[in-house]
Amino acid sequence: MSSTRTITVNLGERSYPIVIGSGLLGGGFDLRPHLAGPDCLVVSNETVAPLYLDKLTANLEGCEVESVNLPDGEAFKTIETVASVLDRLVASKANRDTTVIALGGGVVGDIAGFAAACYMRGVAFIQVPTTLLAQVDSSVGGKTGVNHPQGKNLIGAFHQPRVVLIDTATLDTLPDRELKAGLAEVIKYGAIADATFLGWLEENMPALLGRDPDALAHAVQRSCEIKAEVVADDEREAGRRAILNFGHTFGHAIEHCQGYGEWLHGEAVAVGMLMAAELSGVRTDELSRLRQLIVAAGLPSRPPVTGAGQMLAAMGMDKKVLQKKLRFVLLHRLGEATVTSRYDQTRLRRILEAAD
Amino acid sequence: MSSTRTITVNLGERSYPIVIGSGLLGGGFDLRPHLAGPDCLVVSNETVAPLYLDKLTANLEGCEVESVNLPDGEAFKTIETVASVLDRLVASKANRDTTVIALGGGVVGDIAGFAAACYMRGVAFIQVPTTLLAQVDSSVGGKTGVNHPQGKNLIGAFHQPRVVLIDTATLDTLPDRELKAGLAEVIKYGAIADATFLGWLEENMPALLGRDPDALAHAVQRSCEIKAEVVADDEREAGRRAILNFGHTFGHAIEHCQGYGEWLHGEAVAVGMLMAAELSGVRTDELSRLRQLIVAAGLPSRPPVTGAGQMLAAMGMDKKVLQKKLRFVLLHRLGEATVTSRYDQTRLRRILEAAD
Repeated sequence: MSSTRTITVNLGERSYPIVIGSGLLGGGFDLRPHLAGPDCLVVSNETVAPLYLDKLTANLEGCEVESVNLPDGEAFKTIETVASVLDRLVASKANRDTTVIALGGGVVGDIAGFAAACYMRGVAFIQVPTTLLAQVDSSVGGKTGVNHPQGKNLIGAFHQPRVVLIDTATLDTLPDRELKAGLAEVIKYGAIADATFLGWLEENMPALLGRDPDALAHAVQRSCEIKAEVVADDEREAGRRAILNFGHTFGHAIEHCQGYGEWLHGEAVAVGMLMAAELSGVRTDELSRLRQLIVAAGLPSRPPVTGAGQMLAAMGMDKKVLQKKLRFVLLHRLGEATVTSRYDQTRLRRILEAAD
Repeated sequence: MSSTRTITVNLGERSYPIVIGSGLLGGGFDLRPHLAGPDCLVVSNETVAPLYLDKLTANLEGCEVESVNLPDGEAFKTIETVASVLDRLVASKANRDTTVIALGGGVVGDIAGFAAACYMRGVAFIQVPTTLLAQVDSSVGGKTGVNHPQGKNLIGAFHQPRVVLIDTATLDTLPDRELKAGLAEVIKYGAIADATFLGWLEENMPALLGRDPDALAHAVQRSCEIKAEVVADDEREAGRRAILNFGHTFGHAIEHCQGYGEWLHGEAVAVGMLMAAELSGVRTDELSRLRQLIVAAGLPSRPPVTGAGQMLAAMGMDKKVLQKKLRFVLLHRLGEATVTSRYDQTRLRRILEAAD
C-alpha cells in the first residue's frame, strides 16, 4: 500500500479531511470514527456495488449497514431518484444520527448528498468516490443536487461531507473513457490555477493514461488541493468559486443539446474549456498548448454539430446567467482565471458557429 | 395604522428582522430593499391569494412579479408540490437573484421555503405569514420542508428568510378555528419560557378571541421574541431549540393517526402539551392552569380515540427519537422546559391509554 495523503477543506466547524491513498477502502482507513452513529445507509449503483460494496461494508464492521443501489447513469440524476433514497431512509426508520455514505461516481454522490441534506433537514454524509471525475471534483466542496429536464444541477443543496475517502485503487476498474473524462477536470485545475501543474500533466499524461498509481495519486492530490483552497475561500459560490466552472458554461450546453449521457461530462468540459479559452482571447500558443494536452488525454477538442442557436438557448438557462447577462469563466493566461460578463460578443458567435 | 414593532433574529450573517404591524402589506413596509434582485415569485394558495396577492404585488411596484397558487391544505405539503414550484421557477427562467416570497400559512411557507432552498442550491426567501400559527411559529427560524407519507416534516432544509413581514390585519380574515389553533403555539411559548406571559394570556384570552388588534400584536410580538431568542441560540436544533417542540411529539402522533388535516396542527399541539405536561409530573395546580387556558382558547384538551399502540408507533417515527429512545420536551414547571429521554414509562403508557 502506498502512503496516505490528507488534505483539509477549511470551512470552520464544517471543515473535513480528504484522505487519498491506494487500498484505503479495504481497511487502510477506518471510517467508523467519522460516523454520526452506528446506522449507515450506503448509496451506490448497480455497476459499483458489485465491485466495492463488500469491501466498504467490511470496513464498517460493528455498524448497522443498509444499502441501496441506484440505476447507473446521469439520466437517473432526478428528484424522483432522490425521493426513492428518502423513501428508503424512512422505511429503515433512519434517525438524525444516521450517516449516508455515497459509494460511486458523481451521480451517486450528488443524489446521496442531496438526500442526506434533505432527510430530517440534514444528516451526516460521507463521500467515497470511485471515479476520477468524482475524486477530483464532485466529491469535494459540498455541492449536491439533481438535474431538471430544463437544465443541469438546477435543484440541490450545499451539504458538506464529514470526510472524503479516495481510494485510488478503485480507478483500476474504471473504463478508459471515464478515466479520460476525469482527466478533463484535472487539466481544468491547471488551466485556472497552476501553470506548473499543467507542465507536470504534459510530462505525465502517458503515465496517467497507463494508470500509474503514483502519477494518479499526485494528480488527484493536486486537484483536490486547488479545489479545497477555492472552496474554503467561497463555500457558497458568491464569487471566486465560480472559476471552478471553467469550460462548464459551454460544456453544459453541449451536454444539454446532446441529451445528458451522450457525451460524458468531462468530454463536454474538455471542449468547453477550449471554447472558453478562445473566448478569453489567450495567446495562440497558450490555446494550442491547452488543445494539445486535451488531445493527449484522448479527449475531444471540437463541439458536436448541434447548431449555434441551440447552444445559445441552452446557455440561456445555465446557472451562471445573472440578470439575463451571460457570465463566463475566462482566462487571463494559462493558470489564471476570472469570472466576467465582459466578453467579445462577435467572438462568442464565431465560436458557437463551430457547432453549426 | 398602529405602530410597527421589529424583532431581530440574531444569526450572524444570516440575521434578519421580523416586522410586526397592522396594515404593513398595503404599503406600511417596503419589501423591495430586501429583495435579491428585481424578480420575485410569490407562492400563495387558492384561499389567500384572492385576499392579499394584489396588496402584496402593489407593494412590489417596479419588480417583475410572478405568482403561483397552490391548493390549500396540509395534504399538499409534499415533495411533488415542491417540485411543481421548482418547475415554475425553471419555466420563468428564474436566476440566482430571484426572491421567493411565501404569502400564506405554514404550509405555503414550508413549501415555498424548501423550494427556495433547493432552487440553484438556494435563492433568497421572504415570509409573509397570514395565519396566526405561521406568524408566531413556522415563519420564524428557517425550518422548511414537507411531509412524507410515513411522517411529518421528514424532508426539508434549514433556509432562513431575509425578512418576515407580519401584517396582523391579515388575521381579520382568518377562520375562528385557525385563530384558536394559532393560540395553541402562543400558549406554548408561555409554557416553555415565560410564566408571566401565561398570566397575560389568561387575562387577555377574551380580547385575543375577539381579535383585539393590540392584544394580537402583543401576543405575536412576545411569541416571536421567545422563538427568535431560542433560534439564535441553536439554529440547527443541536440542543435547546428542541424545547420549541413542546407538545409536538404527542401532537404529531395525533395528527399522524388521524390523517393530516383532520385535526389542525395547533389543536393536536394543544392536547399534546397537556399530555407532555402530565408526563412531566408538574404540580396538579399547574397542570390544571394549563388545561384551563387551553380550554379558554377554545382548544381541545383530550386526545382523539386512536389507540395507544398506534400513537406509540407513530411516535416511533417521530424526528425526536434518538438512537431508538424516545425524547420528550418536559416541563420543570410552567415557564421552564427541558429536552430529555428520562421519563416515567408507566406514566407514558397511562397517558397514551387515554387515547384508547
